[in-house]
Amino acid sequence: MDYQTLDAGREFVARLDTGADWRSEIETLAADAGVDAGFFFGLGAVQDAELYFYDQDTKEYDAIEFDEPLEVAACVGNVSWLSGDRFAHTHAVCSREDGSTIAGHLNAGTVFAGEIYLREFDAHLERERDETTDLDLWPL
Amino acid sequence: MDYQTLDAGREFVARLDTGADWRSEIETLAADAGVDAGFFFGLGAVQDAELYFYDQDTKEYDAIEFDEPLEVAACVGNVSWLSGDRFAHTHAVCSREDGSTIAGHLNAGTVFAGEIYLREFDAHLERERDETTDLDLWPL
Amino acid sequence: MDYQTLDAGREFVARLDTGADWRSEIETLAADAGVDAGFFFGLGAVQDAELYFYDQDTKEYDAIEFDEPLEVAACVGNVSWLSGDRFAHTHAVCSREDGSTIAGHLNAGTVFAGEIYLREFDAHLERERDETTDLDLWPL
Repeated sequence: MDYQTLDAGREFVARLDTGADWRSEIETLAADAGVDAGFFFGLGAVQDAELYFYDQDTKEYDAIEFDEPLEVAACVGNVSWLSGDRFAHTHAVCSREDGSTIAGHLNAGTVFAGEIYLREFDAHLERERDETTDLDLWPL
Repeated sequence: MDYQTLDAGREFVARLDTGADWRSEIETLAADAGVDAGFFFGLGAVQDAELYFYDQDTKEYDAIEFDEPLEVAACVGNVSWLSGDRFAHTHAVCSREDGSTIAGHLNAGTVFAGEIYLREFDAHLERERDETTDLDLWPL
Repeated sequence: MDYQTLDAGREFVARLDTGADWRSEIETLAADAGVDAGFFFGLGAVQDAELYFYDQDTKEYDAIEFDEPLEVAACVGNVSWLSGDRFAHTHAVCSREDGSTIAGHLNAGTVFAGEIYLREFDAHLERERDETTDLDLWPL
């Protein structure tokens, strides 16, 4: 386990625009506010969602689309740099009218309403290819 | 996307009372400690749960009740003002003995055990009716 | 509802080792960094998971094992002392390739990849047996 102690940065709350993309909105927040590293948390609802599942054997992402209104019961993720851009690594648990849930790596989702808390770290975190998992991870 | 930079406030941990209402307990915490804005996170278990799902077409909340013991696998929400009172906007992912899950907007739930972390912001956040979604959102 | 105002401590991000145990990694982080109290949040993936469900009637934990690759869609928990050791009370929502989810108290899980944010409190929290629930809770 590798870890890093980080100096605390600023705190933000954001309200995502109805009709915009959930993940892009978080990346826009990070870019507009100049956040290079942070963790975020959110809740709200989306009009649809595209989830990614990482196949640990083939080391490829499989996409699955849900074209239906969903609550965002919980969203947890982080902001760091990847290939020259700010990337919001975004996971979400979504739910339907009957309470049933879907979850995973949220690649995209059309915002119905979204409330985000972003905790900035006074640091620069950048992802690099990890050989073992073939994922872009932090070299802490 | 609208956002606001907020000054950090105090930090609280709370232990919810067995038999009390999950959301009311968080609102009592906010009232007792004088918290006007913040995000909270929690875990624990409830004896039952009432979830709300917001119908994005009819713009009405549909309620669904689960009269069974559930783990609170994850709870994410925020505190702000709504119609003259502190309101804990509370989402939760709950689970059963076989691991199966339900999730959504947690209107109510009888606490079995609950551990909450509340991060206060030194700010006053107040919800106002949003015309597009017919939800009470923050005008940031 | 009992609560405590806590002084803010340090902030950590950690990258969990592939092949190690998810919860043990968090406890190692807490021990290495000397964290006696804090909340943590995470996301990633595991190769398997053992969830606990607390039976509110018998007051026993039932274990259920999932021997399959899973996304960790959301992980929320806290660090405090229990019976002379640091204990990471860990809840997680996990998901499969089709988006379906399982969730609960994560006793163990083999890390595929994991990213953790740990928020330390400058305090000593220690769990004690609670008579009502027969759980180890904080006497706040």
